[in-house]
Amino acid sequence: MIEKIDHIGIVVRDLDKAIRMYSQAFGLELKMVEQLEEHQVRIAFIPVGEVLIELVEPIGPGMIQDFLTQHGEGLHHICYRVTEINKAMAQIGKTLRLRDTKPRPGGAGSMVAFLDPQSTFNVETELVQRQREV
Amino acid sequence: MIEKIDHIGIVVRDLDKAIRMYSQAFGLELKMVEQLEEHQVRIAFIPVGEVLIELVEPIGPGMIQDFLTQHGEGLHHICYRVTEINKAMAQIGKTLRLRDTKPRPGGAGSMVAFLDPQSTFNVETELVQRQREV
Repeated sequence: MIEKIDHIGIVVRDLDKAIRMYSQAFGLELKMVEQLEEHQVRIAFIPVGEVLIELVEPIGPGMIQDFLTQHGEGLHHICYRVTEINKAMAQIGKTLRLRDTKPRPGGAGSMVAFLDPQSTFNVETELVQRQREV
Repeated sequence: MIEKIDHIGIVVRDLDKAIRMYSQAFGLELKMVEQLEEHQVRIAFIPVGEVLIELVEPIGPGMIQDFLTQHGEGLHHICYRVTEINKAMAQIGKTLRLRDTKPRPGGAGSMVAFLDPQSTFNVETELVQRQREV
């Protein structure tokens, strides 16, 4: 059901500054930047082995700006790659509460769903099914 | 320098309950539990692809109990696997501040060092060099 960790989401105030730090200090190189208007964020993907670091900067009101205001910068969520998101949601939904009742479009042509973090020891958790790699 | 993400650290109040959730809901199986007296924690390692989920429960006063009191349960740190920790620290130290000035023994025969999270956008960051897999 779960294939691997797809990405780790980190909220930052300044995306370009964060991209520079990951490159200069860690030698990790940017793969892609995209802007998601509907979530009012800019996102950078930085591969590390089979996992992506997903840096997220708010560009307007929404969940990420709220997080930044309440918590400051830092670790935000874990996303698990699943083979079939509908099956994964049905299986996980037997034990845990889901925030999304059905999959919705994510970035790069993916389908995603979030769980209720109260079910996962306060860890914001996303599931993603991808047709292609980022 | 950085080979992959070694593990993602998550602080929980009840290790056994968390291990059950990861198994029942996500189908992810426990590999090892260890108790580190010097850090006053119990740790469970759960593999997901090439990465480990590291669940950490405090068993007495220390950094993890302080985190739990201040923040509650949740995401705690990212650990990067490096080839040679002394070289990695020298390289990273050119740009970022290190909390540990030299490597120290971690779990399972590893050597570890933490960075200053003020240098890493408030993400608690660990480096680890391992002689063997967990």
